[in-house]
Amino acid sequence: MLEEIKKLVCDANKSLKELNLVKWTSGNVSFRDSNTNNVVIKPSGVHFDDLKPEDMVVVDLYGNVVEGHLKPSVDTASHLYVYRHRDDIHSIVHTHSPFATSFAIRGLNIPSYTTTAANIFKDYVPCSDFAAIGEEEIGRQIVDNIGSSPAVLLRNHGVFTVGTDIEHALKAAVILEETAEYAHYATLHDPDLMPLRKEIIEQCNHFYRTSYGQTEKKDQTIL
Amino acid sequence: MLEEIKKLVCDANKSLKELNLVKWTSGNVSFRDSNTNNVVIKPSGVHFDDLKPEDMVVVDLYGNVVEGHLKPSVDTASHLYVYRHRDDIHSIVHTHSPFATSFAIRGLNIPSYTTTAANIFKDYVPCSDFAAIGEEEIGRQIVDNIGSSPAVLLRNHGVFTVGTDIEHALKAAVILEETAEYAHYATLHDPDLMPLRKEIIEQCNHFYRTSYGQTEKKDQTIL
Amino acid sequence: MLEEIKKLVCDANKSLKELNLVKWTSGNVSFRDSNTNNVVIKPSGVHFDDLKPEDMVVVDLYGNVVEGHLKPSVDTASHLYVYRHRDDIHSIVHTHSPFATSFAIRGLNIPSYTTTAANIFKDYVPCSDFAAIGEEEIGRQIVDNIGSSPAVLLRNHGVFTVGTDIEHALKAAVILEETAEYAHYATLHDPDLMPLRKEIIEQCNHFYRTSYGQTEKKDQTIL
Amino acid sequence: MLEEIKKLVCDANKSLKELNLVKWTSGNVSFRDSNTNNVVIKPSGVHFDDLKPEDMVVVDLYGNVVEGHLKPSVDTASHLYVYRHRDDIHSIVHTHSPFATSFAIRGLNIPSYTTTAANIFKDYVPCSDFAAIGEEEIGRQIVDNIGSSPAVLLRNHGVFTVGTDIEHALKAAVILEETAEYAHYATLHDPDLMPLRKEIIEQCNHFYRTSYGQTEKKDQTIL
Repeated sequence: MLEEIKKLVCDANKSLKELNLVKWTSGNVSFRDSNTNNVVIKPSGVHFDDLKPEDMVVVDLYGNVVEGHLKPSVDTASHLYVYRHRDDIHSIVHTHSPFATSFAIRGLNIPSYTTTAANIFKDYVPCSDFAAIGEEEIGRQIVDNIGSSPAVLLRNHGVFTVGTDIEHALKAAVILEETAEYAHYATLHDPDLMPLRKEIIEQCNHFYRTSYGQTEKKDQTIL
Repeated sequence: MLEEIKKLVCDANKSLKELNLVKWTSGNVSFRDSNTNNVVIKPSGVHFDDLKPEDMVVVDLYGNVVEGHLKPSVDTASHLYVYRHRDDIHSIVHTHSPFATSFAIRGLNIPSYTTTAANIFKDYVPCSDFAAIGEEEIGRQIVDNIGSSPAVLLRNHGVFTVGTDIEHALKAAVILEETAEYAHYATLHDPDLMPLRKEIIEQCNHFYRTSYGQTEKKDQTIL
Repeated sequence: MLEEIKKLVCDANKSLKELNLVKWTSGNVSFRDSNTNNVVIKPSGVHFDDLKPEDMVVVDLYGNVVEGHLKPSVDTASHLYVYRHRDDIHSIVHTHSPFATSFAIRGLNIPSYTTTAANIFKDYVPCSDFAAIGEEEIGRQIVDNIGSSPAVLLRNHGVFTVGTDIEHALKAAVILEETAEYAHYATLHDPDLMPLRKEIIEQCNHFYRTSYGQTEKKDQTIL
Repeated sequence: MLEEIKKLVCDANKSLKELNLVKWTSGNVSFRDSNTNNVVIKPSGVHFDDLKPEDMVVVDLYGNVVEGHLKPSVDTASHLYVYRHRDDIHSIVHTHSPFATSFAIRGLNIPSYTTTAANIFKDYVPCSDFAAIGEEEIGRQIVDNIGSSPAVLLRNHGVFTVGTDIEHALKAAVILEETAEYAHYATLHDPDLMPLRKEIIEQCNHFYRTSYGQTEKKDQTIL
């Protein structure tokens, strides 16, 4: 079952490495199937280059393994917590991308200094409190802190991004690292740099949601 | 029509990714054909690896689609504004390359600290005021601010470079990011660093325009 | 003899370049065979792309060449010193990876600011005193300073990581550079940044050792 | 004539791009043939990926073109000045590698903070005064400032490295950029960082010259 989705999730996990967002075996992508509500996720501790579609683990929303010969990611319970609490989210990406993680170490939100950040994250990328790995605590931090952004920094750990599909969750992970890189460089020179004004952020974000890309948009969500 | 130019513009857009100047689907290259004055530009929101020559959009100078099955870039009206106001410009490149964008966030010109910067940008790379995406405002900022440089930083957004052909516009985008990288490193240590003196900049720029490369030059423009 | 191990050590040395941990011919990986206690190591000053399994040098624990047509690494005596003093170590990796080396230049331990650092290095990555290259002095600094971490910064020189096998020693080298990169960025903004608290480090490290990856773990060592 | 050397010089120029030391068409490698004293150098303004051995330009020590269908590099007169004044130098590499160039912008020598820097550059990499491009002035700055180092920073411009052969000149260019990267990171945190002590530098450098690599060394030169 879910053969096509396992292929997509496998490719998305491999793309994390090609996009320079992960190192060694850390980081993962999951996807929730609309029909079954089952979730497909990366197995724990496997190298991205070694991943094959049949290695993906299928779990139900409560963590029972439906299919798969490997242990799922240690972040699985947190992914599931998010899916149970946010019907609009169908994909989650987790990385330790370095510039974004350096903000997570400092416990700081990343305000929007650029039109691109305003397009994707609106006012700012929030930073959560610390949460232990392995149970639902990370998921709870994501749900409590993510607000209207598709990305959240997890204190002293890394990054989670979400989307209505894999493409949007991956895009948020890529643009978050780019945004953190700009912000790092600029605020090193000027720590008190002003972010974009609220009305400009609204204007950018509205234009992006309604006019960017090839498909007609409904302008209901920023995911 | 314009099949050869669509192939060139497609390749130039793909080269932005190979040159590490863009991420995901942001950034674009356009070219104006001398015979028809039509402009060939990247479609909006398409991945660089997926681009094919037939995906390029051909528009006239007022934005009417002459040929193409996709929506053109959201920056199209601004490219056209530049082409209508500057007869000498035949190619425009747009990126969010990170070091250059960090100067755009701070609203700062990048003065020429190196012979290479003096060769390509003369005295400095100017930074424009903020402009909204989607209409001609970015184009107006480019025309009003670019002066004698082939590059301009667009405040809180990214970078536009221009040239008499694609090669020159791409070169300006590459050397701008290199120049911003040097300047970032050096000014972190010494914020009051002196740029090159005016007469040295003139001398470098004149030598570059008349002696560099394989072709005889006319020494009229720095594009 | 040891043909399979020479292949593994050759591949591991080549992977240092693919992982962006080394430049030119610097850096090396060695492995100690459990049966013979012989050590397989990179030859001195050979380019990673040129390495072939038959170029690997086999030495006994006292540096006598058992097999091989090339001179072994100038770090061989130090690798052997570590193997003679630590029965649990079967692989050693040496790099000059740039962010980690910048901490080694400053003579500073890298405290654990992230869950990943706590997982792999526990409290901190120690920095040794200076040691001359060529004899056992580097090995002595490694053994005296490494403590319970699988990594040590060698003062004004670079990085050594160790493991029960090649996979663990390589992983420590990759995660060390990532950890140093985060720590560099974050502490540039805030030099007095607090690392993770001791009890959180213990909790992360215990969870990682017992729950991460596909194999049942014994929870005895962090290597 | 010199077909084999043209192939070597072509490959060396292409390797500058693979080693991430150059961008677009800037930078070059030359080699002086011992038999004829002719010099083989990159043509001006040609992309590294487009270079073919037959594009290399052969000149005598006074700049007369002996063979070749293209204009030689604008740095040719300076390469020749160095070859005429230093019999021991048979290869010269020029780059604008970014970390090294940021020190050249500041007009600073790079002192040796690591054993690797001491091995290759001894006490420090010197920085020259400013020199105009196109005639011999850059060559004069190289000869006057390089001293016993195989590398020199050219003020507000970039980097020149030299060697008894291409391999040594390329190695110096690679290790210089690595050394500048370390030094940049470390001195951002601690601008008054102490370099290695003189006697340690001597010891490292002597060991490297006599013991590193596969060939017996004569210990006469550090090139």
